[in-house]
Amino acid sequence: MKKLENDLLLRVLRGERAERTPIWIMRQAGRYLPEYMAVRARHDFLTMCREPELSSEVTIQPVEIIGVDAAIIFSDILVLPEAMGLNLVVEEGRGGPRFTNPIRKKSDLSSVREADCEKNLKYVADAIRLTVARLNGRVPLIGFCGSPWTLFAYMVEGKGGEFVHARAMLYDDPLTAHELLQMLTTSAISYLKMQHEAGADVVQIFDSWAGLLSPRLYEEFSLRYIKQIVESLRGEVPVIIYAKAANHSLKEIGDLGAAAIGIDWTIGIDEAAGKIDVVLQGNLDPVVLLAGKETIRSEARKVLSRAPKGRHIFNLGHGILAGTPVESVKVLVDFVKEWNAFEQKR
Amino acid sequence: MKKLENDLLLRVLRGERAERTPIWIMRQAGRYLPEYMAVRARHDFLTMCREPELSSEVTIQPVEIIGVDAAIIFSDILVLPEAMGLNLVVEEGRGGPRFTNPIRKKSDLSSVREADCEKNLKYVADAIRLTVARLNGRVPLIGFCGSPWTLFAYMVEGKGGEFVHARAMLYDDPLTAHELLQMLTTSAISYLKMQHEAGADVVQIFDSWAGLLSPRLYEEFSLRYIKQIVESLRGEVPVIIYAKAANHSLKEIGDLGAAAIGIDWTIGIDEAAGKIDVVLQGNLDPVVLLAGKETIRSEARKVLSRAPKGRHIFNLGHGILAGTPVESVKVLVDFVKEWNAFEQKR
Repeated sequence: MKKLENDLLLRVLRGERAERTPIWIMRQAGRYLPEYMAVRARHDFLTMCREPELSSEVTIQPVEIIGVDAAIIFSDILVLPEAMGLNLVVEEGRGGPRFTNPIRKKSDLSSVREADCEKNLKYVADAIRLTVARLNGRVPLIGFCGSPWTLFAYMVEGKGGEFVHARAMLYDDPLTAHELLQMLTTSAISYLKMQHEAGADVVQIFDSWAGLLSPRLYEEFSLRYIKQIVESLRGEVPVIIYAKAANHSLKEIGDLGAAAIGIDWTIGIDEAAGKIDVVLQGNLDPVVLLAGKETIRSEARKVLSRAPKGRHIFNLGHGILAGTPVESVKVLVDFVKEWNAFEQKR
Repeated sequence: MKKLENDLLLRVLRGERAERTPIWIMRQAGRYLPEYMAVRARHDFLTMCREPELSSEVTIQPVEIIGVDAAIIFSDILVLPEAMGLNLVVEEGRGGPRFTNPIRKKSDLSSVREADCEKNLKYVADAIRLTVARLNGRVPLIGFCGSPWTLFAYMVEGKGGEFVHARAMLYDDPLTAHELLQMLTTSAISYLKMQHEAGADVVQIFDSWAGLLSPRLYEEFSLRYIKQIVESLRGEVPVIIYAKAANHSLKEIGDLGAAAIGIDWTIGIDEAAGKIDVVLQGNLDPVVLLAGKETIRSEARKVLSRAPKGRHIFNLGHGILAGTPVESVKVLVDFVKEWNAFEQKR
C-alpha cells in the first residue's frame, strides 16, 4: 500500500505530533454537495451503497471539492441489519429507510442471524478497495458501522422516530434484547474487521440514538456492547466512538479504550476534555454552517482554542445539514487548516 | 375559594411536610384516554383549546379516571405565539401544528407584538375558572406556558423538527433573536399571571426544545429569559421549570429560584438531587408504561426510592405516549399513592 501523503488523522489518533488539527465532516459525502446530488439523481440511495463504483465516487467528492483530511466510505448503517436478514426499503418521498419485518418479540429473532459479511456485505469491501486505490494515498479512509443499540433500535422499531417499541423491549423483554444485541455485536465486529482488511485505516461506531436511554439502560444495552467491539479491534485498527446526546455517560465512554471520542455540540469541548483524557473529535454545531462567514470562523475558533492541544480532530457535532452552502464548508475547512494548534496556544 | 381537599402538590412545592409523594403526568389529558379521544372525535384540537367547556372537560378526565393529585389545564403552548400575531394552523393528518407566517428575519417582527392576554387569551382564563369551579377543591390546577426559547423555535421555524432556522438565527442575528425572546418573555409573564389570577395554583414552564442548544447558547437564549419569568412571579405563584434534555445546565436551572425542577429520564433522580437542592419532579421513562405491571412497579420504585425524601413530585420524564394502556397508568398512580416516602426510607 502506498504511504499516505496526509496522515494527520492517523497521527493524532496514535497520539503522535501533528502540525495542525485534521478535519473531516460527518455526512461529508451528502446532499449539500451538488456533485453528490447529480449522482443521486441518476441512482437510488441503496444502489449508491451497493455499487462500489458509485459509492467510491461520492466518497472521494468531498476530498477533492472541500479538501477534508479524511474520506469516509459512503454507505448506510442499516446495511448490516439487512445482511442479518431484515428487509430494508427506502422509498422516495416516504420518510427515511424502514424494515418491513421488524423484530418485535423473541420469535421474530428467527428471521435474523449473524451477518456473513464476506458474502452479504462484500460490496462494502469492494467499495473500500476501489476507493483506496483511487485515493492513491491522498488521505486516510474511514470505515464505519452503527452501534449495536442504534441498529437494534431500527431493527425493533422498523423505522426512525422515537423508537418506542425498541425502548420498551429493554424494560419488558431484556433477554430477547440482549440476544439480538449480542448477535449485532458479533456481526459488527466481523463487519469492521472486513472493512479494515479491505483498506479502511480507521473505523467509527455511530451510536446515533444513544440519547434515548437513561444512563442505567445505556450502560447495560449500549456501552457494554460497544466495549466488546473496541476490545475486539484493539491493536488492529483505531476506533472512534460517536455517541450522540450521551454526555451523561461521557466518562464511561472515555474509558472504553477507543482512540478517539466524537462529541456533539451540547457540551463544551473544554468541559469534555476535563472529563476524559482521550483524543476528542468534534464539536461545531452544524447550524453554524448556515450562518455568515465571520460567524463560521469565530465559532470554529472557539472550538479550536478550547480543544485539547494536538489531541483534537475537527468535525461537526452531528452530520452536516442538507441545506448547507458548499462555500461555507470551504470557509470552515480552510480556516481549520490555517489555524495551527501549536502556534495558537497561550 | 374552597379549601383544597388534596393539597399534596402545593405542600411539597412550599417545602412543607406531605404524607406521601404526589403524582401527576405530563400530557395526562391526552390521546391515551378513550374519554379524551371521544371528545377529540367531535372537535378539532384548536377548538378544544378555545372552548372552555371542552378544555375543562378533558382537563378533569384524568383526575376522575386515573386519580392524579393535580389537574393541568388542557391547552397548547402555541396559543401564546398565536395571540402575538402568528397564524396557527393544525391540519388533520399533516403532522404537527405550524405557523404560516414564521419569523425568519428582523423585518418579520412587524407581524408580532406583545400578547394582549386579557383580550386574545381570555378563553384560557375562562377555561381555568370553569375548571376550578368544577374541580371544587378536589386537587390543585396547574397552568403553563412554553419557555421563550421553545416558543421562539416554533415561531422562527414555523413547525416542529430540527429547528434549523431558529438555531441558525441565534448565531447569525442574535439581536433579532433577543428582541423576539424579550417580547415572548413579557408576554409569557402576563399570560402566566392571568392564569394564576384565574385560579391556577401552580404554573409550569415547558422548555421542550432546550436540548437543541449548546450550554453557552442555552444560557444566553433560554435560561436568562426563564429567569425573568421566575423572578416576575416570585411570591405570587409557585413555578415548575421543565427543560428537556438540558441536564448539562441542571445546576444553572436549579439556581433560577423555581419551586421545583422537572427532569427527564436521562439523569438518575438521585444524581439530579446531588446537583441541585430543590424539589424535583419526574422522572420515569414514559416507555415504562408500555411494559408489564411488575416492571412498572419496579421502575417506579426505583424512582421513588432514589428521589429526595419529601421533596419529590412523581411524574414521567416526558409526556405520556399516545399508545399507553390506561390500566397501566392506573397501576402506576396506585403504586405511587401506596408508597410512602417517609416509611420507605432506610
